[in-house]
Amino acid sequence: MNNQKSSHGGDIYSFAKELNLKPKNVIDFSSNINQYSPKIGSLSKDLDISKYADFRYEKLKKKLAKKYKTVYTQIALFSGASRAIVSFLSLFENLNEKIVLYAPIYGEYRRFSKKTVLINRFTNIYQDPPKNSLVIFVNPSTPDGKAYDMRRLFGIWKRNNNKILIDESFLEFTNEKSSIEELKNSNKLYILKSLTKFYACAGVRLGIIISSKKNIKELQSHTSAMWDISTFDEKYILKALKDKNFPKKAIQKTNRDKKELLKVLQNSPYIEKIYPSDINFFLVKLKNIDAFALQEICKKENILIRNCKNFDFLDHYHVRLAVRKREDIRRLEKVLCA
Amino acid sequence: MNNQKSSHGGDIYSFAKELNLKPKNVIDFSSNINQYSPKIGSLSKDLDISKYADFRYEKLKKKLAKKYKTVYTQIALFSGASRAIVSFLSLFENLNEKIVLYAPIYGEYRRFSKKTVLINRFTNIYQDPPKNSLVIFVNPSTPDGKAYDMRRLFGIWKRNNNKILIDESFLEFTNEKSSIEELKNSNKLYILKSLTKFYACAGVRLGIIISSKKNIKELQSHTSAMWDISTFDEKYILKALKDKNFPKKAIQKTNRDKKELLKVLQNSPYIEKIYPSDINFFLVKLKNIDAFALQEICKKENILIRNCKNFDFLDHYHVRLAVRKREDIRRLEKVLCA
Repeated sequence: MNNQKSSHGGDIYSFAKELNLKPKNVIDFSSNINQYSPKIGSLSKDLDISKYADFRYEKLKKKLAKKYKTVYTQIALFSGASRAIVSFLSLFENLNEKIVLYAPIYGEYRRFSKKTVLINRFTNIYQDPPKNSLVIFVNPSTPDGKAYDMRRLFGIWKRNNNKILIDESFLEFTNEKSSIEELKNSNKLYILKSLTKFYACAGVRLGIIISSKKNIKELQSHTSAMWDISTFDEKYILKALKDKNFPKKAIQKTNRDKKELLKVLQNSPYIEKIYPSDINFFLVKLKNIDAFALQEICKKENILIRNCKNFDFLDHYHVRLAVRKREDIRRLEKVLCA
Repeated sequence: MNNQKSSHGGDIYSFAKELNLKPKNVIDFSSNINQYSPKIGSLSKDLDISKYADFRYEKLKKKLAKKYKTVYTQIALFSGASRAIVSFLSLFENLNEKIVLYAPIYGEYRRFSKKTVLINRFTNIYQDPPKNSLVIFVNPSTPDGKAYDMRRLFGIWKRNNNKILIDESFLEFTNEKSSIEELKNSNKLYILKSLTKFYACAGVRLGIIISSKKNIKELQSHTSAMWDISTFDEKYILKALKDKNFPKKAIQKTNRDKKELLKVLQNSPYIEKIYPSDINFFLVKLKNIDAFALQEICKKENILIRNCKNFDFLDHYHVRLAVRKREDIRRLEKVLCA
């Protein structure tokens, strides 16, 4: 993977190299990072990186447990959501059960899942998955950003005795409820959380899995490395969680900017369909132009967008566009509504 | 593991809790972190953590390649040496070949290795390992700190068609040569590097595996998560590597302090044998007292030491003591030479 061309958003480095730009001058509509940041203040105060961290990360886990209304022994931490996914899937590598992906879905699930079955979320969401299989569902979904009512799905999965992973990496951008409360009804449920998108810190590596105490113990004993979390990152997240006003304000501002973006998309002659989105990005279907050609003309404004050709059930007429601040949306407008 | 009591050095958190201390007030002789630090300066300047890092970590890999006289495509990065070990061993999980550990050895190798064969480094180091097996050798060794002449071992491993992992986490503390140069003679060799011990940054998570381009590609495609390295940590290491005077000065100062520690150990009525060490810690065999009792009396001075009871071929009459600065050695002397 590290030697390949990225099939993920946010690869401003290849893009900058191609356009002979500094990476910081790329206007990145391809990655879905919050454009507003919590107040952090000084990170270095009282930070002694010469010492090993508490390998149990008890303080951080307790803060997260409070946020997610669970207990800290039901939490496992990894150096990023991607590492959490790789680790989680490695638990199932040697089992005979199939892995069912509700697609289109984040590419990392494809990369590490073997014996995969795809269910098309757009057309067949309520079909029965194979009995006893592991089902993976991203809520809100990517690349389209829909927040699902999960009740009917949980009923289907219960009936089919499925193990379940719900990826809630983008749930913080909504006021929707988490599937964490389903943990009391199921000992086969895992919830994946990522704070780095909403808390505007993609460079901070923290992925969180929440499940029963027994499942977490098993997951950790099979996959946890000692001290997987950087001491800087631990401190950053602890500080970010202290900014209690941030979530509400960030959602308000993002929704305001999102309306601006939506107007631009609605006015574009290139866009046939805008998928309904509950979060900070839009999936659109193009007309009169394909994603490659649109990527090319975006380059005139140093704009990077996400070509969705490599998502299942989508093609090279689909692109994803993240909500950014107004000045960036004005530049996107120049391209989309020229 | 994360729910267990630590069997590793550096767990100042449990110790501090037990003694009702702040963790920073523990005098930690149990973990082998350099007591001298490189010049870092400001980390936050030009650091934008809202953006995804370059998932190829090309800049960091190129700096490391220069340091280690290799090329960057022969380097894989992980969020710590522990994560590198877990990932590396997962490659061999489904193979039939045995894993041979030259013991005593760092506990993480025991935790994740199945089908393990032990070779006693102290008594049988030149015995033939099973043919085609994976051999794991830590050089310099832990918990005793011996830097080995590797030539004869490489001959034995070649004869037995072994895959080889050499863990050089502590090699920076010596002027000994790296086994990296053996890469040109073997396509079955992997070298593990950790900078966080020598560069005094246990809180910075970076583990490095160096091998052939082909092996690295395979390792990454099986085990690499996207963006495994914290942006803070990446920046810290880049800055640490810029301090060109640091390695020589740190080795000089450590060796000076080590002589002080050695004198204390030689004068102690509790110590029967001091194992020869080429790096920043000593393994000792106790007399007239066992490790548990010595740990107890160390508590009077808030001193944490490493009981080596859980290392193969050692027992609860062995402890490991790291080189620390003189004022700390004076306090240790109060306990050991009372």
